[in-house]
Amino acid sequence: MTAALSDLLAPLEPQLEAMRSVLARELESDDPAVAAMLEHLSRFRGKQLRATLLLLMGQASGNDHPELPEVAAIIEMIHLATLVHDDVLDGAEVRRQLPSVNLEWDNQTAVLLGDWLYARAFGLSTQLASPLASQVLASVTARICVGEIRQAQGRYAFEASQLQYEEIAGAKTGVLYGAAAELGVRFARPDAGALGAEMRALGEELGLAFQIADDLLDLEGEESVVGKSVGTDVDDGKVTLPVLLAWQAADMETRAAIEAAYRAPGVPDRRAALFAACDLVTGCALARARADTLVASARARLEQLPDTASREALERVLEFTLERRS
Amino acid sequence: MTAALSDLLAPLEPQLEAMRSVLARELESDDPAVAAMLEHLSRFRGKQLRATLLLLMGQASGNDHPELPEVAAIIEMIHLATLVHDDVLDGAEVRRQLPSVNLEWDNQTAVLLGDWLYARAFGLSTQLASPLASQVLASVTARICVGEIRQAQGRYAFEASQLQYEEIAGAKTGVLYGAAAELGVRFARPDAGALGAEMRALGEELGLAFQIADDLLDLEGEESVVGKSVGTDVDDGKVTLPVLLAWQAADMETRAAIEAAYRAPGVPDRRAALFAACDLVTGCALARARADTLVASARARLEQLPDTASREALERVLEFTLERRS
Repeated sequence: MTAALSDLLAPLEPQLEAMRSVLARELESDDPAVAAMLEHLSRFRGKQLRATLLLLMGQASGNDHPELPEVAAIIEMIHLATLVHDDVLDGAEVRRQLPSVNLEWDNQTAVLLGDWLYARAFGLSTQLASPLASQVLASVTARICVGEIRQAQGRYAFEASQLQYEEIAGAKTGVLYGAAAELGVRFARPDAGALGAEMRALGEELGLAFQIADDLLDLEGEESVVGKSVGTDVDDGKVTLPVLLAWQAADMETRAAIEAAYRAPGVPDRRAALFAACDLVTGCALARARADTLVASARARLEQLPDTASREALERVLEFTLERRS
Repeated sequence: MTAALSDLLAPLEPQLEAMRSVLARELESDDPAVAAMLEHLSRFRGKQLRATLLLLMGQASGNDHPELPEVAAIIEMIHLATLVHDDVLDGAEVRRQLPSVNLEWDNQTAVLLGDWLYARAFGLSTQLASPLASQVLASVTARICVGEIRQAQGRYAFEASQLQYEEIAGAKTGVLYGAAAELGVRFARPDAGALGAEMRALGEELGLAFQIADDLLDLEGEESVVGKSVGTDVDDGKVTLPVLLAWQAADMETRAAIEAAYRAPGVPDRRAALFAACDLVTGCALARARADTLVASARARLEQLPDTASREALERVLEFTLERRS
């Protein structure tokens, strides 16, 4: 299946390569300390799904603006900045099977490196032909922060509704996918507003599904496969969708056991304790079903685009979200 | 003396008031958690020297662009973001006689609030008539981060040269003053490049002098007067200019005593130990002399501006840097 996706992405390769060149150029510094951290970060290179989404949206909607690879690189830089700060916030020690910046250096430096990445991303966006990228990205970054603040304030929030969970997860992850999809269609193309809004909605659904998949990996995955610390949500008091759904179905006694798995002092493996405490298998299945629904809705929006190989690739990207194991 | 400055600033009051309205409008959030933190931050309101410098430079150079108060507000927002992150990095507990965000909430939230402030500042800058503010501020923010990273990496760096100290302190503090002075002259005025560069140099000298004054306050000040934690530089291993100059004049035995004041375990008041260890009084006097020289150089650059009341006010702002006690 992955082979099929890579075949479908082959026509995108020149633009992806251009995007990677921009990233390599921007993620450089004369300062040796910063350069060493950037060298470390470059080994984190992930799936670059947001950039792929942006460039595919450009192809699928006939937007061939030469600056799209720059816009895609900016999206990846903002994503990288949020990762570096997230790892500080989460106290994560492993990122893509490498030590996180906060572990290899320290929290102070990781905060500053994240700030630097944001500043470089905004700086590049101000040099583009259209101010749309700057405007969208500033607005999206502010929304991501609010989502993260609500999440940080809402630890151990077992009584939250699914809607509240989705608002926060949407702000944390959905809006950047939404911005990627929208900018692919609308960048430097002021007449593409309606299609851009539709594709932003698609991106937000995809991002939320991706976040739910992430929540599931943190509960069900193995660190050696996932490539980053697992079980951290439970350790950090984050009540993710599978847990929320298990909580909602649980009686008082089970709820007390869930809470103890999260909060009782000295529990060595909180994730294992949580599975022992409640029917988390069903919670995970229900969360997976919600991700399926989101992806189905996103897929329906693809009908707004002409039937091309790029659109087929977008369909495969949507499916990939549900299949991913890392 | 302060009365004289406030008289000289009276003609600036309408623009300062406009700047404060922009700040009040931008530092709002629908989210209750973010709104509560912003309410707390609004009580930090400091001297707004960077905004004052920018607006005075506009007046003194005949730049009456109606968006200057917005640009000044953006500079203050970026300054506020760096303060919030600095307090996390420094573990500071008091800021302008109030608990810091990291103490009142937590480090995670303080990092995110700083990110939000940066994003709002950039977002506002992308809505202005000229892209200059966005470009200058993105570049300046990246340089501030590099300066802070170098400082964080260079703790206990007693062997640094004065030049290295000034590069780092300049990047940390000087560049934002430089940007304020430059933008006051050059914003939306592409023909003012040469004067803008001269005033940027003035701003950088002023900012470095201001940082040295800050270093002195951290060594010599009392918390109740300064309004924030003092002695934190010694606690954090920051070798500031007065200490560097005392170190350079010290023999081996004294150097060992300086290092012990900074690093030996269990020293209850490291600042007092440092004064006992070496001739820090002379180190402070030499650092103060360097600040005087910087301000004198900045004052000479003012000659490039026409002789007006605004220029006189700028002279008083320069003097204020050397006199300040908080």
